[in-house]
Amino acid sequence: MRRVFITGAAGFIGSSLADRLLSEGIPVVGWDNFSTGQERFIAPAKQNPNFTLIRGDNLDLPALTKAMAGCETVFHLAANADVRFGLEHPSKDLQQNTVATFNVLEAMRANGVKTIAFASTGSVYGEAEIIPTPENHPFPIQTSLYAASKLAGEGMIHAYCEGYKFEGYIFRFVSILGERYTHGHVLDFYKQLLDHPEYLKVLGDGTQRKSYLYVGDCLSAMLHVMKMGKAREAKHNVEVFNLGTDEFVQVNDSIRYICAALKLKPRIEYTGGDRGWIGDNPFIFLDTKKIRATGWKPALTIEQGIIRTLRWLEQNHWVYEARK
Amino acid sequence: MRRVFITGAAGFIGSSLADRLLSEGIPVVGWDNFSTGQERFIAPAKQNPNFTLIRGDNLDLPALTKAMAGCETVFHLAANADVRFGLEHPSKDLQQNTVATFNVLEAMRANGVKTIAFASTGSVYGEAEIIPTPENHPFPIQTSLYAASKLAGEGMIHAYCEGYKFEGYIFRFVSILGERYTHGHVLDFYKQLLDHPEYLKVLGDGTQRKSYLYVGDCLSAMLHVMKMGKAREAKHNVEVFNLGTDEFVQVNDSIRYICAALKLKPRIEYTGGDRGWIGDNPFIFLDTKKIRATGWKPALTIEQGIIRTLRWLEQNHWVYEARK
Repeated sequence: MRRVFITGAAGFIGSSLADRLLSEGIPVVGWDNFSTGQERFIAPAKQNPNFTLIRGDNLDLPALTKAMAGCETVFHLAANADVRFGLEHPSKDLQQNTVATFNVLEAMRANGVKTIAFASTGSVYGEAEIIPTPENHPFPIQTSLYAASKLAGEGMIHAYCEGYKFEGYIFRFVSILGERYTHGHVLDFYKQLLDHPEYLKVLGDGTQRKSYLYVGDCLSAMLHVMKMGKAREAKHNVEVFNLGTDEFVQVNDSIRYICAALKLKPRIEYTGGDRGWIGDNPFIFLDTKKIRATGWKPALTIEQGIIRTLRWLEQNHWVYEARK
Repeated sequence: MRRVFITGAAGFIGSSLADRLLSEGIPVVGWDNFSTGQERFIAPAKQNPNFTLIRGDNLDLPALTKAMAGCETVFHLAANADVRFGLEHPSKDLQQNTVATFNVLEAMRANGVKTIAFASTGSVYGEAEIIPTPENHPFPIQTSLYAASKLAGEGMIHAYCEGYKFEGYIFRFVSILGERYTHGHVLDFYKQLLDHPEYLKVLGDGTQRKSYLYVGDCLSAMLHVMKMGKAREAKHNVEVFNLGTDEFVQVNDSIRYICAALKLKPRIEYTGGDRGWIGDNPFIFLDTKKIRATGWKPALTIEQGIIRTLRWLEQNHWVYEARK
């Protein structure tokens, strides 16, 4: 990788990726509209002369095209990642995910940039019939606008790989954990326990089974298969990889890890039902044999990832104020 | 069905559907921007007092929302159906298919319309690994922008069915044949043979295997499962059906049928290769067990459909002038 363009460079995963690439000596152009990105996350990268930050929005195609000039590889991580409230503003997923991804592809085409990594989601499997869920799961039914918009992004990337000979890497993430985490159940639970250590409200009945991956492992996985050039060996110039660990945890397990780490014994109040909200998936567990067969494996367990996240949140209460 | 809204009502399938519904006494509101729709196709419907024609574009959401008022069921058939030239203007599929479908869903939501039938395509299977291809084929790689945009439409419909309790019918069509056909190989071959009866140029090597369905059978299939309310029995309020016959033909077979019907013996000139163009699929054959299990079956074979199409074209040379 010679010069990398990151959309969502001031976000959780984007800023972590920027730091990793810069540490390897790879020049990085970071692009972010700071709608959810954080100045503090990108501050370390900004100290590095190999880093350029450009403020802009994926819906501004001329600016995006100009910003991408001279890059060789794009990590398209910017997205509306608000799965739960998609039904309250359905155009957000269409614009910020589907149309934005199209613009990224068009900016690449205009600049002759051919390689793209895309942060997709295990949610595209909907309520999977096969668990652990492999990449070639039967054609699923989408259960959220977020997943539908990521599926739309995947499809366009496929078509660009086939039609314009792009090299595509689609990564279907489980929930990512770690330093700079700004979104999800660890954040919510820790905040609650700061506010009222004696009780914890839980959406659903606590038996939802979910999968997580530590951000450092997520970055290693992406870089590993991209450096191998795996998509160039694929029939249609595109490879799809599930990213996750080979375990899952119940919400109740996660609560146990968090409470033990905080030395708290709150009363647990469940809202009930096997789903936290409409479109919530009661069991997410991806089959990661495909990425493991390339030689990658995660360094941290889910429990370790949760604890790292919690320790970071303890040192960074400011994120609660910074969230919009 | 009490009052039906058809997008693309002046198109091949849309106008045929309007005529069919009107013949059953069902009021129809036809919506078309006449970018490819034909005044002549919709002329018979316009004679019927149960028919209302409204000119407008799916990208004009306020007008679309207003036009749809009072309807109960939507057939969303309007689309950019130009598969072959998608790479020349990639935003067309995004706007006219993906964004347009979102607008149709939003207009429905604003009007409290819950039931949607969507003309998707067998192309969403890409180069299928399983042939005949069932609806639950493994998660495929998209090979055209057209198919990617239809996949995006499917995903959004799923999410609206799950999130807003819509009732969704997704029909993955093979190529449709019959009266009012304006697009495809029968049109191209017949035109060539009018211009130069002594030879016929064929994209690819003629061995591409394709599937077709007669438009009357296509309409019967959609109305059959919708009247049964099949999607209301489905787990996520949405049903996906392949539509086709249980046969396929080679391009060479089709040439043989056409030439025999025209009593011509042209010299065949192949461009060569197993694909007609980038993204062309050398073998399309859908498994239609699912729709057949509901009691529907097609009345015409592919050969009969091709001959009907040809006979209609012989009587309607004007379509060659009308195409844009």
